Amino acid sequence: MVKVRTIVIIGAESAGLTSAASARLRDREARIVVIERNPYPLYHPCGIPFAIAGRVRSIQDLVEQKPKLQNVEMKISTEAKAIDVKNKKVEVLDLKTSKEEVIHYDSLVIATGSLPVKPPIPGIDLENVFTVHSIGDGEKIINATRTARRALIIGGGLIGIETAEALRERGLEVTIIEMLPSVLSNMLDPDMSEMVLKKLQEIGVNVICGKKVGEIRGNGKVSRVIAGGEEFPAEIVIVAAGFKPNVELARVAGIEIGVTRAIKVDERLRTSAEDVYAAGDCAEARHLITGRPTLSQLATTAIRMGKVAGANAAGGNENFSGVLNTAVTEIHGLEIASTGLTTQAAESAGVKTVSTRVRVLDKPRYYPEAQPITIKLIADSNDGRLVGGQVIGRYAGARVNLLAFAIRSGATVKEISKMEYCYAPPVVDDIEPLVVAADALARRFA
Amino acid sequence: MVKVRTIVIIGAESAGLTSAASARLRDREARIVVIERNPYPLYHPCGIPFAIAGRVRSIQDLVEQKPKLQNVEMKISTEAKAIDVKNKKVEVLDLKTSKEEVIHYDSLVIATGSLPVKPPIPGIDLENVFTVHSIGDGEKIINATRTARRALIIGGGLIGIETAEALRERGLEVTIIEMLPSVLSNMLDPDMSEMVLKKLQEIGVNVICGKKVGEIRGNGKVSRVIAGGEEFPAEIVIVAAGFKPNVELARVAGIEIGVTRAIKVDERLRTSAEDVYAAGDCAEARHLITGRPTLSQLATTAIRMGKVAGANAAGGNENFSGVLNTAVTEIHGLEIASTGLTTQAAESAGVKTVSTRVRVLDKPRYYPEAQPITIKLIADSNDGRLVGGQVIGRYAGARVNLLAFAIRSGATVKEISKMEYCYAPPVVDDIEPLVVAADALARRFA
Repeated sequence: MVKVRTIVIIGAESAGLTSAASARLRDREARIVVIERNPYPLYHPCGIPFAIAGRVRSIQDLVEQKPKLQNVEMKISTEAKAIDVKNKKVEVLDLKTSKEEVIHYDSLVIATGSLPVKPPIPGIDLENVFTVHSIGDGEKIINATRTARRALIIGGGLIGIETAEALRERGLEVTIIEMLPSVLSNMLDPDMSEMVLKKLQEIGVNVICGKKVGEIRGNGKVSRVIAGGEEFPAEIVIVAAGFKPNVELARVAGIEIGVTRAIKVDERLRTSAEDVYAAGDCAEARHLITGRPTLSQLATTAIRMGKVAGANAAGGNENFSGVLNTAVTEIHGLEIASTGLTTQAAESAGVKTVSTRVRVLDKPRYYPEAQPITIKLIADSNDGRLVGGQVIGRYAGARVNLLAFAIRSGATVKEISKMEYCYAPPVVDDIEPLVVAADALARRFA
Repeated sequence: MVKVRTIVIIGAESAGLTSAASARLRDREARIVVIERNPYPLYHPCGIPFAIAGRVRSIQDLVEQKPKLQNVEMKISTEAKAIDVKNKKVEVLDLKTSKEEVIHYDSLVIATGSLPVKPPIPGIDLENVFTVHSIGDGEKIINATRTARRALIIGGGLIGIETAEALRERGLEVTIIEMLPSVLSNMLDPDMSEMVLKKLQEIGVNVICGKKVGEIRGNGKVSRVIAGGEEFPAEIVIVAAGFKPNVELARVAGIEIGVTRAIKVDERLRTSAEDVYAAGDCAEARHLITGRPTLSQLATTAIRMGKVAGANAAGGNENFSGVLNTAVTEIHGLEIASTGLTTQAAESAGVKTVSTRVRVLDKPRYYPEAQPITIKLIADSNDGRLVGGQVIGRYAGARVNLLAFAIRSGATVKEISKMEYCYAPPVVDDIEPLVVAADALARRFA
């Protein structure tokens, strides 16, 4: 009789559950155990700002009580306390019954995700200072908005600006304080993020860039924030200063941590410990262009890694080919998307670039709903290969998906300018905006 | 002194004007002459149904009086009467002054487009039987709708269904009669076009497939149509039975015509005559997958061919790599798009296929505006390479553009299932619908 493999997965968010599903596809017989600290198997943290906005009916709608999984042991309200990589065991604690258990594994996937960064700002532990991570966070923020009038958001990244819009929709006065000179600087060059800034201002969000929050003040509850010598009254503070990989469990187990402070993995998503894989926010990803380790921290990356880690934990031999950090959001109907390197990120990585920015109508000028779309393409100045793309306007997300595919296939801007595309007046103009941009940039290589 | 090259282009629609622009980019000095029969340099035939619908303010808005072209001699209201390929001359006639002129060329681009097919149906020349091709056609149809109550459309292709919706928007009763068993059969498999049929029926269009129009009857003006033994009263008949390449000028000049009855061209878009190129609807395109000559008849193909023909006419050495006939339309808010081969087209070309169809929500289920999106992927059963994709739902056009890029790069469905994509609840769910479909199909090759 063949021994049935036991695959243990720690964490039931995107990476963990995708690992479970992928392992099950690969091995129909294996025992698959998922260990999750939360009292539910999966929730969608990216939905929280939209629940705060009131666009999602109830924040509880973000919880998946019954994810579609075949024959997976789901241990919710259960914490993994320790991993014994030598004896291939995980110690777990049932948080409801306080019962401990030791589970032997043949292979293990660590998918412990990330935790919101809480910068060491005086007053950060005051009441009504929130992060945007758990369902509980969302509930607390929604509760607090019932009495608060003013919110201050620390950080102008995706979560920061999405939450800013959400709180405006709740009727609050909102200020974003971003340390760097522009918002969404991970995704957009300054000339592109300028458009996001304008949109935020248009919906009444006060955005202050290039200033650091020095202190959060209040008597028990937050009442004001000090930044750059100025005082901002606020009854709510949102800390949207990024996420750090949740790697304590792995570190204590002696698993190697990489330069990004996430778990080091190879192309098969193997950690330094035998038969132990890592996936999602807790794991390092390799940037497809620079080849360097990077923190991707996207649900999509977690899912893509989970597929690979789960298959390999079940005896597969899949590769995770790296990330371009393709991302999208929408602020007040304006779609904003990006893939690959920004100009500055390319420079930091030693990639010399040329770029172009075009602004065209997405539909023919004679069509009534034609809207401007802005596209920035960034190419390696040596060989004309695309290294980054930023799109603001209709279909931005779908358009950067195509650019990500193009970058992955090593396409030059000249090749992209020759792409085949579709046209119909109610949908898109007769020259696809991506082609307009690629044509303009290709001329620089003529 | 270097002799300045003369490039003559016959036809000022998409292929012709793109050729002119492309030639100018390549050769700053050349004399470029464009000869156009119409009294305006360019118009957008694809906009006509939307002008009929009243969505475009005026049909005259479809005319581009001043296309952006640098230093191009635009001879409008001028007809090319004959090409002398031996002596490299074109005889032209000024339709206003009746003055004839002979223009010598160093290189010539034939971009004479196509003409609507008028099937030999008795009564086809009756009053109020229209095609949908010229600005004049559109004006006449709009005029006729003022008194007509019922319209009958011959042909359920793109123009047929777009015009059907337009006439419904004008308040007419509309019947489509399509000879083949399903509508949009060039673009969609029957299981996909079923959704288009439903949408048409939903907006009150009567669709009859599998019947041929036998006769158009009326006393001077059309009053009824006979199809399949049945009689359909109609005060307007729209003939949307396709387009035939407009090649008379080329044929008389002795230029080789291909099996598709369009002008035969090589990869450089050279015709059989020296220094004579052809581009757009009048030229044959090679299908990228089958390698066979095909009639593409899309404005996008005309533009892509024009770029190549124009550059080569100006001394360049560009390749036209073939077509996948990527196309999109929108019927009453439902986006419908397709690229590559349908299952039937693949079969006719001797390509064995496997396919999958998935129907998922485009946004997370908890997000209020989530809409179903249906995707069909068709792969070569030998190697898993994608050969066709059909998408109905939000972003359908942008999604088939990505599929077209993937087909062009030779991607397998497994590779597509690993594509990187973006996610944000207001835009798209955490597993891109294309990936759901590619995953499902990839399993067939596991």
